[in-house]
Formats: sequence, C-alpha cells, structure tokens
Amino acid sequence: MRPLRWNIDAADGRARAGTIATRRSEIETPVFMPVGTQGAIKGVRFEWLEQEMDARIVLANTYHLFLRPGPETIRELGGLHRFNTWGRAILTDSGGFQVFSLNDLRRLTEEGVEFRSHLDGSKHFLSPEISMEIQAALGSDIVMVFDECPPGDAGHEATRTSLELTARWAARSRQCFDELQDSGSDTGRIENAPEGLDGRQALFGIIQGAGHFDLRSESLERTVAIGFDGYAIGGLSVGESKEVMYGVLDHIAHQMPADAPRYLMGVGTPEDMITAIGHGVDMFDCVIPTRNGRTGGAFTSRGKLNIRNAAYARDERPLDPDCTCSVCRRYSRAYIRHLYQAGEMNAATFISHHNLAFFIALMREARRAIIDGRYNEFAAAALAKLGDESASGV
Amino acid sequence: MRPLRWNIDAADGRARAGTIATRRSEIETPVFMPVGTQGAIKGVRFEWLEQEMDARIVLANTYHLFLRPGPETIRELGGLHRFNTWGRAILTDSGGFQVFSLNDLRRLTEEGVEFRSHLDGSKHFLSPEISMEIQAALGSDIVMVFDECPPGDAGHEATRTSLELTARWAARSRQCFDELQDSGSDTGRIENAPEGLDGRQALFGIIQGAGHFDLRSESLERTVAIGFDGYAIGGLSVGESKEVMYGVLDHIAHQMPADAPRYLMGVGTPEDMITAIGHGVDMFDCVIPTRNGRTGGAFTSRGKLNIRNAAYARDERPLDPDCTCSVCRRYSRAYIRHLYQAGEMNAATFISHHNLAFFIALMREARRAIIDGRYNEFAAAALAKLGDESASGV
Repeated sequence: MRPLRWNIDAADGRARAGTIATRRSEIETPVFMPVGTQGAIKGVRFEWLEQEMDARIVLANTYHLFLRPGPETIRELGGLHRFNTWGRAILTDSGGFQVFSLNDLRRLTEEGVEFRSHLDGSKHFLSPEISMEIQAALGSDIVMVFDECPPGDAGHEATRTSLELTARWAARSRQCFDELQDSGSDTGRIENAPEGLDGRQALFGIIQGAGHFDLRSESLERTVAIGFDGYAIGGLSVGESKEVMYGVLDHIAHQMPADAPRYLMGVGTPEDMITAIGHGVDMFDCVIPTRNGRTGGAFTSRGKLNIRNAAYARDERPLDPDCTCSVCRRYSRAYIRHLYQAGEMNAATFISHHNLAFFIALMREARRAIIDGRYNEFAAAALAKLGDESASGV
Repeated sequence: MRPLRWNIDAADGRARAGTIATRRSEIETPVFMPVGTQGAIKGVRFEWLEQEMDARIVLANTYHLFLRPGPETIRELGGLHRFNTWGRAILTDSGGFQVFSLNDLRRLTEEGVEFRSHLDGSKHFLSPEISMEIQAALGSDIVMVFDECPPGDAGHEATRTSLELTARWAARSRQCFDELQDSGSDTGRIENAPEGLDGRQALFGIIQGAGHFDLRSESLERTVAIGFDGYAIGGLSVGESKEVMYGVLDHIAHQMPADAPRYLMGVGTPEDMITAIGHGVDMFDCVIPTRNGRTGGAFTSRGKLNIRNAAYARDERPLDPDCTCSVCRRYSRAYIRHLYQAGEMNAATFISHHNLAFFIALMREARRAIIDGRYNEFAAAALAKLGDESASGV
C-alpha cells in the first residue's frame, strides 16, 4: 500500500509515457500541471479544466495559501479540495521557492527561514516541519519537501553548502511528513482509496545542485537514499542559461529512479518541455500560460503571438488555427484583441484558457508520440513549427 | 412583415408576460438584458449566458464600439454578431446617453453633439443619422433612437426644450433608419427570417420628460405619433429620487402602447424591476450585476451582500442559498471571499455570473407569477425578502 502508483506505459529512448495513480485521479504523463497559486487558476474556471481540458492535477502554492487565507482557515473548512472544490489531484510546493524569490529580507538558519510577508511586511517562519504541517492542512495529494533553492548562477562552494542544507531539510521533511500521516493531520485523506493505494499524501524529494553536474549527482544520490514517492528537479528555470538547463537535464534526468515520476519544477515553455520529455521528465508546471495570457501573450503551435499587435485588428482567424479548444473554435484574434485593447478581463480569460488548453494538448501529443515510438520525429517537427514565427499570423 | 412581433401571453393588473419575436431569438418577458458595453459581458463568457442562463438578448453600447474598435472595423468583420459571436438578439443604445454622461466638454446643436472621447480626448460628432449608421454597421436587432437625456432634476423649461429636440431627433432617426434599411446597410440582416418577420432591424422610440408628468405624456404622444416597434422610458435612474422614478413609472408606463414592448432603460435593482413590472414594463438593462460583481457585491434573494465582509471568511454557504446557478451550486462564500481578497479575477467572474443568473431568474419568476395571476403577492413577498437583510448571512 502506497500513496501513489507509477506505471510506465511506453518508453521511446529516454522519453516515457506513464500513469500516476493518485488517491484522487489517474494522471497520464507527460503532464502539464496548471498553476493555481491562490487555490484558483487565474481567469479560468475549474469547469473548463474538468470538462474541456480534462486536467487531472493542478498545483497550489503553499507560501501564498499560508499567508492568505492561512492553513487554520483551510483546515477548518475541510482542506483545500473542499475549500476550492477541485476534486482531482493537487500538488503543493513547499513554500520555500517563494520565500527565496519574493523576499529580500529573509534570514536563513539551520532551523528554517524567517521572512517578511510580501503582502504586509509581517514576520513569518517556515521550516521543513512547518511546511509539512501546512501541506497536511491543505490536504494536497502530492507534497513537496522543503528545500533551499540557490540562484541559477551559484558557485560550486555556495551550491554545496546549500545542497547540504537541502539534504538535511529533506530528511526532516520526510520524518515530519510520516509522523503527520500517522497522526491523521492530512485533511485530504481518502478512506476508500483506489486499489493498491493507502489514501495518504505522497511526498516528492527535490534534487538541487544548480549548474554543477557533480553536485546534481550527489543531490540525487542523497535524495534517493532518503526515499520518496517521486523526484523533482529544482533550481532550473531560475535565471540560468538554456545551455545550463539543458545540460543539467541531459546529465541528471535519466539517472533519476525509473520507477518513480520525474518532475521538472517551474518549467516551462513548450520548447523546454519538449526537450525535457526527451530526457525522461514526466511532470511540469509553470505560470506562463496564465501570466502571459493576462498580458496578451498567446502560445500557438507556430510560436508565440501577442494579441496587442495591430496586425490582428481585423484577423478573423482563431489564436491558433490548429487548436481545438473552445476559445479557438469560437473567437477570433480580432475580437480578442478588441477586448484586450478595451481592458476587458475576458481577453485575459480567453487567452489564458487557450494557453492552458494548448499546453495540455501538447503533452497529450507528446504522449501519443512516445507510445507510437516516434518521439524524436515529433519533437523535431514540433520545435520547428514553434520556431516558424513567419507563420504565426503576422 | 415587421422587424419584430410582440405578443402578450398573460396580463395581471398592469403587469404583462409577453414574447418578443426578433429576427434572431424569441424573448420571453419580463426580460433583463445583460450589458455587454464593449461587445462582451464583463467577466462572463457567452457560453454561460447561452447554456446555463439561456439569455436571449444582450445590450451593447454604440458609444463605446464607435470609439473602439470603430464601426468600419465591425462592418468589415461582418457586424457585431459575427465579430463577438453572440448569435441571439442584440439591442444597441444610440450612444447619446454616454455622450451626455461621460463628457463634460460636449457641444450640443440642432444637428447633433460634438464631444471628446473619454479615451484620448479626440473630437467626435454624433447625430441621429450617424447613430443610425453606426447601429446599422453593428447590425444589432433592436436599434434605439438618438435622444437627448436631461438630468434627473431638470426643471420644466429645460426639460421641455430638451424634449422638443428629442422629438425632432426621433423623427430624423426614424427617417434615416428607414433609408438605411432600404439601402441594405444593416450588417445583421437575416434573409430567411422567422415567419412573419422581415429580417430587418427594429427601431425603438424613447420617452423623455424627466420628472414632469405633463412632459412625459407629451413626449409619449409625440413619440407614438412617429411610430416605432417598441417604446422605451429614458431619463430615469439618472440621479433622481426613487419617488420621482416610481411616480413617473406609475404615470406613464401603462399609457404606453399595449401592442409594443415597453423598455425601462438603465434600470435597475431587483426592487426597481419588480416595481416597474407591476406598472407594465417588459424590458430592463443595467450594468449593476457585473459592475457590483467586480467590487464584491452580490445580489441575493435576501438582499445584497459584500463578499469583502470578514463575516464570510469561513462561511461555507453559497452566495445565495436559494440560487441554482453554477456558481452557487459549487462555490462557497468563504472561497469567493478568499479569491476577492487575493485579487483573483475569478472572484469578479463568479459574482458577476451569479448576479446575472439571479437577475435573469428573477425575471422568470416574475413571468411565472404574472401567468399564474399572482403578481402582486409575488412582488410583495420578493420585496420583503430582498429587504430582509438580517437573513443575508452576516
């Protein structure tokens, strides 16, 4: 009896098509997880994610929910699933990344990290134990260990120091997590879990090491030694160059345990995901579909377009003529551009919706290509098409 | 052959339950028309209005679409229906009201009104003829005459002067409108219109007269003399007291032609609509469901609530426990309040959606009560419940 079951349905080179059975939903991989920072996907109702996109898992941010509405409120209201009504799987990050990226005034100790809220400057403290407690109150289905994320260009010495701390925090996360599971702190517990699953939260470890291959290997080894239900690559897409990111992926992804899901945190663009899948990554999350959507940026199979461009003022084509989402089946670039120019929030809603549908569909196409044994051809064709900016409609 | 057909399905006192057959949809009355100022309902996708609320008609604002994206663009793109994809009926106002309410620097002449755009200060001109031309380019199904709307507290002399101008503008609107219909300028023309309809735009006249009963009567008489497909009461809900509004309604509504729809422009609250229906009004429009929705204001069967109130932080009830809309069937006050406090646009989306559903459902209940011959009891009970603020959940 485990919290989740991982099955490889097909492999093609290093690329894998798998299924993650969680207590709440079965997730086919490769999978893109829409980000619901505050417990909602910005601008897109869950109904669309369920009925149209069939998203099986979303991400929520522990840091943001910790500050507002707070874990006590969510615990009292029965956990995040009951609070936000999303009945499928939820993965929560540990809060660490936001503490490090949103706070200049943090104070790091062996125990944890003290920081000031980006909302009101109030002082707060997070540690492996507190993060596990918050994630138990949220009742997410996949919990992430509390780690320290060094800058993308961190030197070898600083990265080693950080990595050591992350390893000790991973062990503390694991221990506290297990105690919380035993004590019934998890609000998301499922009594009648699917066959073979114990209804508990799953815990993923995180591999750090910045751009240093030897430290990435060491971090992997030490993380696997503790033992987790899945393994994530952290500390990429944090400002380092594409060469560094792709180098680390090439070096580490295929070495990660084959018998567990592999999650590349915070990534990324369609190009990055296609590349990472080729290295054996299974799971992704990123805010760009909704963040770019709010500023007029649409992802399409032929590259990005920005709807503010005057060239779209009388363009009757959908955002992406190859997309079958409900926005592309109905609304034109001209109309969405008008809404954007007029300051109507429906513009953000429409583009965010399309972008999420596009990311999710791209993962489905990748999966199909892996199962068919043609992933390399698929990746080459998709990357070429994504780079074909002349065809993006301008 | 006419542009629309009006049928009274039932009457109860002065209240009427009717059906307006337009070239694009059949509209059961009393009806609330959601306002899509820029060609979209703020925060609510048409899909919900069609599939869930079954709204048959929405309003669009000529002034706003005139300034952006402009009638030439919409004409080139095949008219407003094709541009925004709303396939049911659209009513457009004349643009006059916004010119008078959004512009301090307007210059009024017999010919029309010169004004500066509230967007960029650029100079523009609207007249009865130009308004008809724009509305023909939009291809709306119901066109409003170009009128002047005096302030709610305008004196007798000023109101009479304004009324005379409005009467001359109404005649010019009618003449230009007919010419535009004959010349095929209307982008919304339906070749195979429903039986008995000619597929052309319909034109409504507007009764002005501020709070002066004698001038309201005179305006009605002069408007009817010109002859329109429907008649609207303008110049209410523009800052006058409730007593003035209800007095004018009591005086004029039942005198309006029984054989045409009666439209109370820009109204209003649930209380105002219930009262006006009792005086024989059939059609309403107002921005408050979506405007209040964006600032956290929800309309419920037991009065208004503002979701920002801390009392809702752990309130698991829906916005309105008596509402069957998809927001109230799923989401709690606690969750929506959290989204509002967190600045998530989904809060505005959810509350706007509920408010529109509530307004539309209220009209359906009023219609049912009229058909059942119990409108007075319905109105008294609904008004008492709306005033029962102790029950609104705080």
